[in-house]
Amino acid sequence: MSTPPHSSTAPAAVTVLGLGRMGGALAAAFLAAGHPTTVWNRSPGKADALVVRGARRAGSVAEAVAAAPLVVVCVADDEAVHQLLDPLEGALAGRTLVNLTTGTSAQARANAAWAKERGAAFLDGAIMAVPEDIATDDAVLLYSGPRDAFTPHEPALRALSPAGTTYLDSDPGLAALHDLSLLGIMWGVLNGFLHGAALLGTAGVRAETFAPLAARMTTVVAGYVTAAAPEVDAGSHPAGDATLTVHQEAMRHLAEESEALGVNAELPRLFQLLADRAVADGHAESGYSALVEQFRKP
Amino acid sequence: MSTPPHSSTAPAAVTVLGLGRMGGALAAAFLAAGHPTTVWNRSPGKADALVVRGARRAGSVAEAVAAAPLVVVCVADDEAVHQLLDPLEGALAGRTLVNLTTGTSAQARANAAWAKERGAAFLDGAIMAVPEDIATDDAVLLYSGPRDAFTPHEPALRALSPAGTTYLDSDPGLAALHDLSLLGIMWGVLNGFLHGAALLGTAGVRAETFAPLAARMTTVVAGYVTAAAPEVDAGSHPAGDATLTVHQEAMRHLAEESEALGVNAELPRLFQLLADRAVADGHAESGYSALVEQFRKP
Ligand SMILES: NC(=O)c1ccc[n+]([C@@H]2O[C@H](COP(=O)([O-])OP(=O)(O)OC[C@H]3O[C@@H](n4cnc5c(N)ncnc54)[C@H](OP(=O)(O)O)[C@@H]3O)[C@@H](O)[C@H]2O)c1
Ligand SMILES: NC(=O)c1ccc[n+]([C@@H]2O[C@H](COP(=O)([O-])OP(=O)(O)OC[C@H]3O[C@@H](n4cnc5c(N)ncnc54)[C@H](OP(=O)(O)O)[C@@H]3O)[C@@H](O)[C@H]2O)c1
Repeated sequence: MSTPPHSSTAPAAVTVLGLGRMGGALAAAFLAAGHPTTVWNRSPGKADALVVRGARRAGSVAEAVAAAPLVVVCVADDEAVHQLLDPLEGALAGRTLVNLTTGTSAQARANAAWAKERGAAFLDGAIMAVPEDIATDDAVLLYSGPRDAFTPHEPALRALSPAGTTYLDSDPGLAALHDLSLLGIMWGVLNGFLHGAALLGTAGVRAETFAPLAARMTTVVAGYVTAAAPEVDAGSHPAGDATLTVHQEAMRHLAEESEALGVNAELPRLFQLLADRAVADGHAESGYSALVEQFRKP
Repeated sequence: MSTPPHSSTAPAAVTVLGLGRMGGALAAAFLAAGHPTTVWNRSPGKADALVVRGARRAGSVAEAVAAAPLVVVCVADDEAVHQLLDPLEGALAGRTLVNLTTGTSAQARANAAWAKERGAAFLDGAIMAVPEDIATDDAVLLYSGPRDAFTPHEPALRALSPAGTTYLDSDPGLAALHDLSLLGIMWGVLNGFLHGAALLGTAGVRAETFAPLAARMTTVVAGYVTAAAPEVDAGSHPAGDATLTVHQEAMRHLAEESEALGVNAELPRLFQLLADRAVADGHAESGYSALVEQFRKP
């Protein structure tokens, strides 16, 4: 009678629906942290490796949902979420559903209302990590929805992102809004790198030669983001380092260089267009953060 | 007679033409490192603060060029460079001209030929730093052109970027090509951040609240660049972490989210268009680096 078989610190049972690249990594993380883990995937074969590591395979979504108070879903898109869950009707009652499928804030808010109707607590979540970083200190997962849906399950959710489990807000839409905003930065870097690799490739420079400079630049620019934030909030855009005119001119050079070398120029042409509009709005002598006003326009 | 007044290690004389935000920082860095520094700017007032710190003000471009074997030019654009230097004719003979004005690789190669005709050695350079980082370990400056134009002046150029003075290649166009490619990454991050700040602003989230997550994401993505590089070089694009289909879907969400919130959607729509083309080319199940093929097309 020293330790009860299920003390309050024993890892809680969890269910994972969807075992694609990301869902598989989530289930593996729960298992590695000692959570009794029930799994289900549309194509059953994707559960095999997890079953070998101790997961319980559910024969149906309903069986999977019945197996644990915390149900994590991570599938391709919102349509897949509803194809999975709509047939369940009352079976979600009393469960906490955590949707880690990427979507919009409108979808997240609609799903929160949908879950409420079915008697389930609901959190929307955003995974700011690749599958291989799940369960490492590099993983950041953002959650939004009622705090009392988050708090009891926080210990289990920490299995996915030991150092980066972040509760944002009671508005369930905020995880999605942060998610998409952060993905926009990610694509911005990756597109810039691939565009640059295409340009430099015309001169025989290898992407692996360019990468260290590109990675360093990216890290340095993380600091520029920090510096731009108070300017955005204050609506004041001093040209501390460089004017928008200087940027505009360099954007034109990137576009012309791309065209001269037969490389796609749509991205720098769009950058230039945004800068042109800001300059037309009187921001020739402002700093880069003045462009936020252009992004605020439809 | 212990140390000769001008030992080989005494800082060499330098001239800086153009004292805007960046040129002013360059001249200040040379002065701080003990180089006898001659300065000239079209609007003479911008030299005043440098003269107080020990710079010699030249009365004309010709006088400035005559004052030192190393002449650094940093003005608005290539047109300004030629407005300054074309009238000099033979006065550049025997000098080393280092052009730190942003431009294209074609301009750099044309300037190299132009300088050669006038008997000057020529380096094109790219400043991967903001003015306040000049002379700090955060500054990276890239140079291209004949190595024997670089080597003798490397000690002086180190005053600008003590830890980041980088010689690239004898082709004078390569500094510009790297410069514009790296700027593309910078704009990608800044645009992503400002777009995200506009989106989150509609929900009352401050840019300063978003910035730490944005900066962390940016730093994490620097690692994705390193991972993508060998795939670009090998022309092999495995979907290790996520398929292009998954990215494409999330891009669509960012575009729809932007439109729903009255935020500019041109950037995510262009991202989506590039991904759509890659998917149409058979890359639905490839990884993100497959997009390089789209950038390689005009
Ligand atoms: N991979 C990443 O790096 C990453 C990062 C952050 C967020 N995410 C997000 O995580 C989610 C999953 O991405 P992933 O990379 O794991 O994708 P994936 O490898 O393509 O897997 C997709 C999953 O969705 C399931 N699915 C698709 N349509 C379905 C339907 N109609 N009914 C039931 N299941 C369906 C698939 O089942 P089958 O096996 O039967 O096809 C599979 O389990 C996406 O929303 C993605 O944006 C991914
Ligand atoms: N600022 C940055 O963060 C940064 C970073 C990397 C690279 N750069 C590059 O550095 C260069 C200068 O940028 P900056 O920020 O210093 O710009 P800036 O503050 O706007 O200064 C522009 C400079 O160019 C001079 N100029 C313009 N037209 C001229 C002409 N026709 N004849 C002679 N001089 C002329 C100006 O002289 P007046 O004073 O007489 O107008 C001034 O000295 C640009 O190519 C830029 O891309 C800047």
